Amino acid sequence: MSGILGTPRRLRLGMVGGGAGAFIGNVHRIAARLDDEWELVAGALSADAERARSSAALLRLDADRSYTDYAEMARREAGRTDGIDAVAIVTPNHLHAPVAMAFLDAGIDVICDKPLALTLAEGRSLAAAARANGRFFAVTYNYSGYPMVRRARALVRAGRLGALRAIQVEYAQDWLSAPIETTGQKQAAWRTDPALAGNAGCLGDIGTHAYHLACFVTGLTARAVCAELSTLVPGRQIDDHVQAMLRFDHGVRGTLWASQVASGAANGLRLRVHGDRASLEFDQQRPDELLLRDQGGDETRLRRGRTPAGVTEHLRLPGGHPEGFIEAFAQLYRDAALVIRARHAGQAVPAEAADLSMVADGVQGLAFVAAVLRSAAEGGGWTEVEGA
Amino acid sequence: MSGILGTPRRLRLGMVGGGAGAFIGNVHRIAARLDDEWELVAGALSADAERARSSAALLRLDADRSYTDYAEMARREAGRTDGIDAVAIVTPNHLHAPVAMAFLDAGIDVICDKPLALTLAEGRSLAAAARANGRFFAVTYNYSGYPMVRRARALVRAGRLGALRAIQVEYAQDWLSAPIETTGQKQAAWRTDPALAGNAGCLGDIGTHAYHLACFVTGLTARAVCAELSTLVPGRQIDDHVQAMLRFDHGVRGTLWASQVASGAANGLRLRVHGDRASLEFDQQRPDELLLRDQGGDETRLRRGRTPAGVTEHLRLPGGHPEGFIEAFAQLYRDAALVIRARHAGQAVPAEAADLSMVADGVQGLAFVAAVLRSAAEGGGWTEVEGA
Amino acid sequence: MSGILGTPRRLRLGMVGGGAGAFIGNVHRIAARLDDEWELVAGALSADAERARSSAALLRLDADRSYTDYAEMARREAGRTDGIDAVAIVTPNHLHAPVAMAFLDAGIDVICDKPLALTLAEGRSLAAAARANGRFFAVTYNYSGYPMVRRARALVRAGRLGALRAIQVEYAQDWLSAPIETTGQKQAAWRTDPALAGNAGCLGDIGTHAYHLACFVTGLTARAVCAELSTLVPGRQIDDHVQAMLRFDHGVRGTLWASQVASGAANGLRLRVHGDRASLEFDQQRPDELLLRDQGGDETRLRRGRTPAGVTEHLRLPGGHPEGFIEAFAQLYRDAALVIRARHAGQAVPAEAADLSMVADGVQGLAFVAAVLRSAAEGGGWTEVEGA
Amino acid sequence: MSGILGTPRRLRLGMVGGGAGAFIGNVHRIAARLDDEWELVAGALSADAERARSSAALLRLDADRSYTDYAEMARREAGRTDGIDAVAIVTPNHLHAPVAMAFLDAGIDVICDKPLALTLAEGRSLAAAARANGRFFAVTYNYSGYPMVRRARALVRAGRLGALRAIQVEYAQDWLSAPIETTGQKQAAWRTDPALAGNAGCLGDIGTHAYHLACFVTGLTARAVCAELSTLVPGRQIDDHVQAMLRFDHGVRGTLWASQVASGAANGLRLRVHGDRASLEFDQQRPDELLLRDQGGDETRLRRGRTPAGVTEHLRLPGGHPEGFIEAFAQLYRDAALVIRARHAGQAVPAEAADLSMVADGVQGLAFVAAVLRSAAEGGGWTEVEGA
Repeated sequence: MSGILGTPRRLRLGMVGGGAGAFIGNVHRIAARLDDEWELVAGALSADAERARSSAALLRLDADRSYTDYAEMARREAGRTDGIDAVAIVTPNHLHAPVAMAFLDAGIDVICDKPLALTLAEGRSLAAAARANGRFFAVTYNYSGYPMVRRARALVRAGRLGALRAIQVEYAQDWLSAPIETTGQKQAAWRTDPALAGNAGCLGDIGTHAYHLACFVTGLTARAVCAELSTLVPGRQIDDHVQAMLRFDHGVRGTLWASQVASGAANGLRLRVHGDRASLEFDQQRPDELLLRDQGGDETRLRRGRTPAGVTEHLRLPGGHPEGFIEAFAQLYRDAALVIRARHAGQAVPAEAADLSMVADGVQGLAFVAAVLRSAAEGGGWTEVEGA
Repeated sequence: MSGILGTPRRLRLGMVGGGAGAFIGNVHRIAARLDDEWELVAGALSADAERARSSAALLRLDADRSYTDYAEMARREAGRTDGIDAVAIVTPNHLHAPVAMAFLDAGIDVICDKPLALTLAEGRSLAAAARANGRFFAVTYNYSGYPMVRRARALVRAGRLGALRAIQVEYAQDWLSAPIETTGQKQAAWRTDPALAGNAGCLGDIGTHAYHLACFVTGLTARAVCAELSTLVPGRQIDDHVQAMLRFDHGVRGTLWASQVASGAANGLRLRVHGDRASLEFDQQRPDELLLRDQGGDETRLRRGRTPAGVTEHLRLPGGHPEGFIEAFAQLYRDAALVIRARHAGQAVPAEAADLSMVADGVQGLAFVAAVLRSAAEGGGWTEVEGA
Repeated sequence: MSGILGTPRRLRLGMVGGGAGAFIGNVHRIAARLDDEWELVAGALSADAERARSSAALLRLDADRSYTDYAEMARREAGRTDGIDAVAIVTPNHLHAPVAMAFLDAGIDVICDKPLALTLAEGRSLAAAARANGRFFAVTYNYSGYPMVRRARALVRAGRLGALRAIQVEYAQDWLSAPIETTGQKQAAWRTDPALAGNAGCLGDIGTHAYHLACFVTGLTARAVCAELSTLVPGRQIDDHVQAMLRFDHGVRGTLWASQVASGAANGLRLRVHGDRASLEFDQQRPDELLLRDQGGDETRLRRGRTPAGVTEHLRLPGGHPEGFIEAFAQLYRDAALVIRARHAGQAVPAEAADLSMVADGVQGLAFVAAVLRSAAEGGGWTEVEGA
Repeated sequence: MSGILGTPRRLRLGMVGGGAGAFIGNVHRIAARLDDEWELVAGALSADAERARSSAALLRLDADRSYTDYAEMARREAGRTDGIDAVAIVTPNHLHAPVAMAFLDAGIDVICDKPLALTLAEGRSLAAAARANGRFFAVTYNYSGYPMVRRARALVRAGRLGALRAIQVEYAQDWLSAPIETTGQKQAAWRTDPALAGNAGCLGDIGTHAYHLACFVTGLTARAVCAELSTLVPGRQIDDHVQAMLRFDHGVRGTLWASQVASGAANGLRLRVHGDRASLEFDQQRPDELLLRDQGGDETRLRRGRTPAGVTEHLRLPGGHPEGFIEAFAQLYRDAALVIRARHAGQAVPAEAADLSMVADGVQGLAFVAAVLRSAAEGGGWTEVEGA
């Protein structure tokens, strides 16, 4: 049932980036709409004025809330009585930090796509600003919105796996297997351009998702990494293949592999966690399932909505009715709505939204990226991950 | 991108049924919202006045468009200049026909959940009324909204399987394994009460989905059935387990099995179609996949968004980003929007919406139900299926 | 470890049928050899003298124990002090009964491939003869040799599924999808010739396996069937596609589907059993696994050698080291060796060999075949299955 | 059909190690027996005289060919006219080299379990001795006997994947998750004792299998490794968890993970190879399948016996009739028989046995082990793998 929060109005969302043809911007919009907690009312959808205008028209925005300059948008929305409750930042990576800073300065809550920023220093500044301004700042690590990922986290926390020993995480795609960035493919162009994407290509784009997933489920952080970055498509300016060994808290071992040139892989994000009692496996391409394997014994396929697990509050559909990527993404917007409404009401963060990843998680991701870049640059020795 | 149809307004949707706590009503609402083509503006959400009112409030409907009487709603909405463009009927089965007739009579387009009606005669009346009034009348056989089901249909039509030989379809659930209708479970109560659900229990509730899926993918209709209806939970008033053999057009053989007491099954709708060249298999619980097996050879796992197949127009997400039940349901609302906008503009049905199931498909389903009931009543011989 | 039975000699096996190029004869030989309990010492490998001789030479049989006439073989082996301990009958179906009778009459134990005979009457005569002569008579329903099939049987017997409700069994192949019997393919030629295979084509060849598997695992027998036999390849003289509904003991419902023209199917024997507490599924193409699904809950994948289950005595390899078709077949020869050695020693049948199917099971299979033939001939009504 | 090689006698096999209770010795015996090309006629099954004697009796060996001293066995068998054609060495690792040397010196062909020896130097000596004496020396990397692994190798060689880019290989077990070596478990005891197993625990026991599989399928060798060895069970004297990054020939990237403490893993050997056109995946626990995924497209499940592929000569059973671990192991004995018979006849190695791994492959494995040990000891930097 929509509207379960019993509030008379939808929260007002603004968006920076996400003009016509964008991928992730459209996903954010559908996700925000799914549970009917948000309505999109303003946007700086493109720096190109004409594209901003036509995109806004397609989205049925009022013309006077379609901006071409995000700084102006922050300023003007902050001044309206019906101004946005939060801004969703869905630009290429290099703009995440300046846009977020502009909205924080204007006193507006932020929902930012990952990676949080181009550098660890930028990320720390954002965290500090959010703290100083008392603003809400979520980072959309969308894979942590899957109910079975949250189930996995709860199982680890409850000790179901025993003491953790080892983690394997991987994220394989193949869409950059050929140098399509030279053919005008817009998504590929910015994601392989260090000026727009930062120094970390595949590492920043999907390696950070993999790392976050491992940390989210296990509650651990990597202390040190030993990594190799590769550019397997000749002429590319940025890494497209990452492999690393990791040492997590408490001596837990780990490996991470991410590639955007892994022929045949669509969106293969997969996590395995081994404890001394059992292990679990999650495969993003079958997100309604979670495999649990007991030491010396059988394998159980946990399925969303089929096991009493205290996560029914996240469910829109009963078991056997598949949910997917959009539903997981929508979970973050639902969590954000819960938290923001609680703040508006002067209440604490509701327990059921406690799994939402915030700016500190984004900073951790940047610390990991920095350590991998350093290890790879130094020829592959073990390097410490700086504390977030 | 939302709003790709380039129209300045969302279509206005009314709903009959679907008050607080309803399952399928909420699914219709999310589905209608997903692609931003519809907005819910009116409803007769419950025959109980207080429940109708509070449900409408939760859904942020204007109070003056919350009705308790569907006939009044039909009449008043028909008289508004901003009246609804279509009504979604999501009541228990016994109301489908009278509600639909009321809106048809008022000149309002209809989107009706399945089964279309309680009897074949009722269904034929609805089809005749829709034809006479020139109204749009869709039936939400939602499983036909999955992109891979549509791919399957296209493959069969293109001859990829060769000449068809045999069909196996099944739909297994376990939620009625115990007599929960006696414990106050609302969904179970009406679905096992012949006065509300009709004479066909499991047969009408999910057997019709299975039959439709087989017909939708193959383009065939059953000519005769040989069936057995069982009530495996003692004391239940209606069938909860169906098994049947079918003879489709052109001598194609078939079996159908549906059960709501199949322990361990969540929502196991599965179709296999065998031709003399290849076969295909679709499993609703892994809806982004379609298995294709060649005579004497290998198995190919077709995956949504990974094969050039002329269905990219249905896709919201690239391959590897799972879509599910809601997205398939939303496809029907998207199709309906396309058709209704085309009618408003005096244009033909757009090709990309040609897969939407209409009232005639609903009538076919009722003819199948009638034949199964007759065969079972006669002790299991072969019985002809009446032409729709 | 071989030789665990602590006996000083291998049992001596004779074989009727199975000349060069045979499929099942070679499987029997490998299966008999696997656990080192048997040695092949005599054979009437072919009715063609030259082929019998050359086949025997390839198998390193002594020339004087290579026969062309099975009756002579029975007589002469019965008279030798080092005569065979048992005969394996691996001829086309029409010879099973006369050959078996000849060896029973000579006082020699029998291991016979399925189906036991061409008719129920023949089968009953064999059972009577075995009883009268006090002979051992096993029928090689090889799929019942899989450890996970035996596990399934034990789980049902222990009540793990609760009270049984419904059974689905199917066996799909595609090798007869085209009329290859007209092209000189020897296996296809005899299996589609009623004179050699009997009146039941697909029904006798693989339908009987499916039926046996269902009975073996559940401990139930069909009381009545309602069936349709089809010949989907034009010009073929015998059925190649079977579908049936079954009523088992205690009102348990069932469906059976078997086809040798199911494009894309290799050897798809699959059983599902539903009880009111849980269900299980076995797929012959993944024989080391057994799926167990609990009412309303999760799915457990039981794996051979990974669950304490009292069947370790059947295991040659630890879990994760796949076993297959030959190992299952070998299990029957191991069971047979255990029973025959016990008989030689005047002891009871050892408990661990109690799952071996005997002549009575073969007679049950023929009763099922007869009932299906009768139901199909009568146009598909319900027909009783005669007691074995 | 057995005996297809048309030879009048079985080859005579001797065995060192493999007394009662042994795991791998029994597997070798079954494997050697399966295709009826070998008979076991002599053995030094245990250094313990009584255990050697009783084991030999169980195996029905002649008492005068049961030895307690492998050197005596080599000498005496070499002197018999009916002496063994080859010796199978199935002892703990530390004896592989001395036993093999003794038989090579006696002029007897060798089939040795892996790892070939404890050190790279020992391995090179064996290779030199085999070369000098003109002896056959196979190493039983049994996983390379699976038909689908050989298919994978052929596909890579034929360019089906395009230019190779990256390899992921892993081998996970859980049987050493607890310190069972302290409880009298014999297999665990020797495999975790550096004196018997060598300096490499998990690395030598299963890491070498994983590395061999990667090399076998791709035809590549690692040039450098960057590795971490861990002992995750406290008190253990040897590694039980290995993770490494690899650089193969031509810049191909790789990762290897092996663990014997991965809770829930039975025998999880899995290989993925990515080229710029397609990738493949092999999972030892489903050995009749091979997944092939095309760049940007679909996934094909190749199945043994279902695709014309020029490997029919390796098949005992048609598609859909599962083969497993023993059949793969038997393939090595079949290959060995082919090669040895060819040598006896003064002919070249038959093409169909060209995939058998020989002593040089064993030396490569030891070079890999040495490099991993060195990298781990040096704290994880990149280290060159010495040429074999």
